[in-house]
Amino acid sequence: MSRVWNFSAGPAALPRKVLEQAQRELLDWNGSGMSVMEQSHRGKPFIAMAAQAEADLRELMAIPADYAVLFLQGGATQHFAQIPMNLAGPDDCADYIVSGHWSEKAVREAAPYLRVNVAASSETDGFRRLPARESWVLDPAASYVHYTPNETIHGVEFHDVPEVGEVPLVADMSSNILSAPLDVSRFGLIYAGAQKNIGPSGLVVMIIRRDLLLRSGRPMAKVLRYAEQAAHDSMLNTPNTWGWYLAGLTFQWLKAQGGVAAMAERNRAKAELLYRAIDDSDGFYANPIEPAARSRMNVPFTLKDGALDGAFLKESEAAGLIALKGHKAVGGMRASLYNAVPLEAVQALAAFMADFAHRHG
Amino acid sequence: MSRVWNFSAGPAALPRKVLEQAQRELLDWNGSGMSVMEQSHRGKPFIAMAAQAEADLRELMAIPADYAVLFLQGGATQHFAQIPMNLAGPDDCADYIVSGHWSEKAVREAAPYLRVNVAASSETDGFRRLPARESWVLDPAASYVHYTPNETIHGVEFHDVPEVGEVPLVADMSSNILSAPLDVSRFGLIYAGAQKNIGPSGLVVMIIRRDLLLRSGRPMAKVLRYAEQAAHDSMLNTPNTWGWYLAGLTFQWLKAQGGVAAMAERNRAKAELLYRAIDDSDGFYANPIEPAARSRMNVPFTLKDGALDGAFLKESEAAGLIALKGHKAVGGMRASLYNAVPLEAVQALAAFMADFAHRHG
Repeated sequence: MSRVWNFSAGPAALPRKVLEQAQRELLDWNGSGMSVMEQSHRGKPFIAMAAQAEADLRELMAIPADYAVLFLQGGATQHFAQIPMNLAGPDDCADYIVSGHWSEKAVREAAPYLRVNVAASSETDGFRRLPARESWVLDPAASYVHYTPNETIHGVEFHDVPEVGEVPLVADMSSNILSAPLDVSRFGLIYAGAQKNIGPSGLVVMIIRRDLLLRSGRPMAKVLRYAEQAAHDSMLNTPNTWGWYLAGLTFQWLKAQGGVAAMAERNRAKAELLYRAIDDSDGFYANPIEPAARSRMNVPFTLKDGALDGAFLKESEAAGLIALKGHKAVGGMRASLYNAVPLEAVQALAAFMADFAHRHG
Repeated sequence: MSRVWNFSAGPAALPRKVLEQAQRELLDWNGSGMSVMEQSHRGKPFIAMAAQAEADLRELMAIPADYAVLFLQGGATQHFAQIPMNLAGPDDCADYIVSGHWSEKAVREAAPYLRVNVAASSETDGFRRLPARESWVLDPAASYVHYTPNETIHGVEFHDVPEVGEVPLVADMSSNILSAPLDVSRFGLIYAGAQKNIGPSGLVVMIIRRDLLLRSGRPMAKVLRYAEQAAHDSMLNTPNTWGWYLAGLTFQWLKAQGGVAAMAERNRAKAELLYRAIDDSDGFYANPIEPAARSRMNVPFTLKDGALDGAFLKESEAAGLIALKGHKAVGGMRASLYNAVPLEAVQALAAFMADFAHRHG
């Protein structure tokens, strides 16, 4: 089968050029006569590649020198637990902003490790808007404030970084990292599962202000301590070498595309096109999210007649538009428009949607 | 450069046929028009692939039905911490057998989570032999007994499963899983980082007796609970999909090779050939391990004249024999002979060693 347009929420589409390079050098990386997967992570070639990936990410995101960059494992979900372990003691408190499925999970996984204060929630609004900043009841003694800048399932996104004063701001950016310029200095800790905007699953990228590495947390294994991983350049134990390599190729691809500013422009155009296709459909399609909170990355939408869902999925798949089924928590459809999804894919989707509405409207 | 013979201790050589298949289908897996890395782990094709990988592993190792098989992340090192979290309470005790570098690390990472009883250690012997079973001082109240059947750095291996009565036996088999037939029913829990005998790094395979999933351990995040991962077929959160896929291809390759009995025969022949090259060198090369404890997987050896180490490494690399430098903890050389290293590679190494000794002896 020829390549298709993949709108999966994650693991998600990867840049074609990245896949082609990985394919070319799969059995012979860097002239070594071995796959990158067969390289010792202690060897000079792998260490040089890993350092280049970090340097490229630092350049792309303009990461200040007082932040460490870690390449970890376990998915964002594991770090829902590991962040409170590292940043707080068992009797400390942290503020959590709940804006959808993933921030709820972050609360649940943190709860065994400290006192969670849900400082704001948009649950009563069905997560169709964001909790307004002025409604947040923050605890000045909190160890950190955690929020989820983009909710992959509910399709809501913070378009500005909330001001939280001196308390470190912690952000799960799994689904919108590298999608637009960002002032990293506003954050204490940024983390992201790689499988949406960075690379394959099984890798977590973390950007952590170095002073937070000095927090003692609690007695725990070295392998779970961010300070230990930072002290060992994320190689306290064997990292996910393939994931790190693919992330590095993606960072190089992003630089060749013009960096995050250029991606932001494309992502804006892609999202505008799709939301217009929904909003201009005379109600055939609908997106339930308050316009100011709409995500540029994940666009859930419903058909006026839910009985047509099956036909929509079948016909779109036949047209080479893949993975449009919505998450079961919200139903309907969802198109994820990460960096690796080109404008051409969204144009094809919008054209299909118009045609489908015309035929079934 | 053409492919070389890779003796890396891990990440290690992968079967050439596995790499070739992964390369062929890197942009179009299973006729999907997408990479396997771009597939949703919730989609039917990925779930079918994952289930097949588990079924193949169950067949290869004859895993009884009352054991769950998990595909996790974090490396064996993370599970040094996660195993005590899951199998014991903070006031419980566990027995640890220390036979080298990795079992020492297992002790260190477990210590924050329960009372560790070092029931036996061969440290005073420089880890050149194994702690004799009759010397083990086991605690009948221990939550489990942990040991390391093969020590990757020191090159010692248990060739029989120790009898420990009713207390569950927990084994870090990272460096010798699937290298020979095994009676899984003798164990409570077997775990292995994939990057030696299974696939790429970033994946951990765990085989756990289901009754151990009922242990409550302590309050902790769901994502760290083996019982939760078992209940969700290792997909409580996004797994390392690429690692799982490569593991599945490796299991199929192992079956095509004749399974673990055939691999055991080859591994025996490979190890015999290399130890003979060392022992028959009139002292030019030496392996310090008591013969009965010698590892079939990792063969450390020294040159009589350490001043020749540099020349040995340079010339062997020029001959296409890669990653022979020993671990800094023991010095000298080390050749790792995992399943994916063919007899031909060891023949080439033995011939090189004889020639080198002849020229420099």
